[in-house]
Amino acid sequence: MLTTYTQQINGETWLVEDDRDNLKISYRLKEIVAEEQSEFQHVMIVDSFDFGRTLVLDGVVQTTSADGHIYNEMITHVPLSIHPNAKKVLIIGGGDCGAAQEAAKYEQVETIDLVEIDQTVVKLCQEYLPEVSGRLSDPRVHYHFTDGMQYVKEHKNEYDVIIVDSSDPVGPGEVLFAKSFYLDIYDALKTDGLMVCQSMSPFLNQEITSQTYRRIGETFPHQKLYIATIPTYPGALWSFTIGSKEHQNINVESFDKQTKYVNYNILKSCFELPAFLQKFV
Amino acid sequence: MLTTYTQQINGETWLVEDDRDNLKISYRLKEIVAEEQSEFQHVMIVDSFDFGRTLVLDGVVQTTSADGHIYNEMITHVPLSIHPNAKKVLIIGGGDCGAAQEAAKYEQVETIDLVEIDQTVVKLCQEYLPEVSGRLSDPRVHYHFTDGMQYVKEHKNEYDVIIVDSSDPVGPGEVLFAKSFYLDIYDALKTDGLMVCQSMSPFLNQEITSQTYRRIGETFPHQKLYIATIPTYPGALWSFTIGSKEHQNINVESFDKQTKYVNYNILKSCFELPAFLQKFV
Repeated sequence: MLTTYTQQINGETWLVEDDRDNLKISYRLKEIVAEEQSEFQHVMIVDSFDFGRTLVLDGVVQTTSADGHIYNEMITHVPLSIHPNAKKVLIIGGGDCGAAQEAAKYEQVETIDLVEIDQTVVKLCQEYLPEVSGRLSDPRVHYHFTDGMQYVKEHKNEYDVIIVDSSDPVGPGEVLFAKSFYLDIYDALKTDGLMVCQSMSPFLNQEITSQTYRRIGETFPHQKLYIATIPTYPGALWSFTIGSKEHQNINVESFDKQTKYVNYNILKSCFELPAFLQKFV
Repeated sequence: MLTTYTQQINGETWLVEDDRDNLKISYRLKEIVAEEQSEFQHVMIVDSFDFGRTLVLDGVVQTTSADGHIYNEMITHVPLSIHPNAKKVLIIGGGDCGAAQEAAKYEQVETIDLVEIDQTVVKLCQEYLPEVSGRLSDPRVHYHFTDGMQYVKEHKNEYDVIIVDSSDPVGPGEVLFAKSFYLDIYDALKTDGLMVCQSMSPFLNQEITSQTYRRIGETFPHQKLYIATIPTYPGALWSFTIGSKEHQNINVESFDKQTKYVNYNILKSCFELPAFLQKFV
């Protein structure tokens, strides 16, 4: 029998996120939709009352039907609106397939390599989390179920845009925040390529945001921080960091993709940082 | 002995917010700093590990040292940057004194009337929550410990800016979201006056945001929605609605107040709404 990471409280089923020492968020569930112990982690899809279908890894909420699109749209459309002609896109992580789904909205994109270590995440999200994965079946998307760090080392001068859609920098995700990883990404990018990574909440994890921004700035000639509100992530004010060899600014005059969060105004205003962050970048 | 709304779990003290059916947020506490049962509600100041000193009313987090300034700066500096010369400001609610503290940063403001029904909230915030209240002692601030709805009815054509800093529209706060209240506010404003209210999370409480926006639009010739990220509020993406008789746009060329969140870029970009909200306003 699997450990479900859920609790019965007064006849109700609750998921209690228990990974932080001082803040716990508990979600009341309608049901546990699917559950598997993979080689790497405990993978669960639940249906929660407030946030709908939800991907949970080792008991921690990763993405939800209600707000997964905010994260996936922001990590994808911003770099793809800065690069003027991205043909080859690499996504490291991103097993929920949401970023790949957004990237597939660009006609000029010819190849999307999705490198996710855990095939179980992709399988369960494709089957039970269509609001995020879109049951993506675009022929331009190529799945590589392998280690992202190793994959990047083996590819040189190949990609226009690399999206690092990692989990938090604890446990297996930690190496994806290391300086050496950014150097390998630099080499995997073409001469005018650019990367983006999620850089945590500058509200709750200011040190990680700051360190990521600094490391990327040491690796790339241009770095940029942008923000979005992701309600189910602790701290909610979320940051993304761009490292770019050449292109720096939004390169489109309008925005015509079908989205729920990103529009042209958001593409432009996401770089406007509040006072405490302006001092810090 | 008072009901503290806190729980002992494995020798640790936790505040478990228990007012929502499907989502519970639990804060680990260093200590309960002060606690009183007032005529209106249970008022508590606690010190939490992640968010510092925190005002808790009837067991629900209202404002914290860590992010209270975001709310108070956004509800104050936006209307005071739209009105070109506000001299008389009314704050309904706002017992944490944070909005009044922000309004007091404007030299041209001559009078700030703060109408809070519960004197205990002001007393405890002044004494134990200086990070939010600033232990405000500006002679332009006049406290009125009375019912805000009644106060507004008794004042006509008097204020340049009215800030409705209410709690959620459940229980005593509900009347501050009623159409008749907005009509009374309209009458209490001068001929070029404007109001602002918090209009909840358009993410978790879209119906309330939508209803508030519609009611204010039925009352005032101009209405506008703006947003900010307030990490400790459920939904985190928070909305504010402006109702104005005349002035509509940010009226300053730069921003020179001492703040932690608001700056000139935020004043301009807070009106840029994500796609799902643009459709809805």
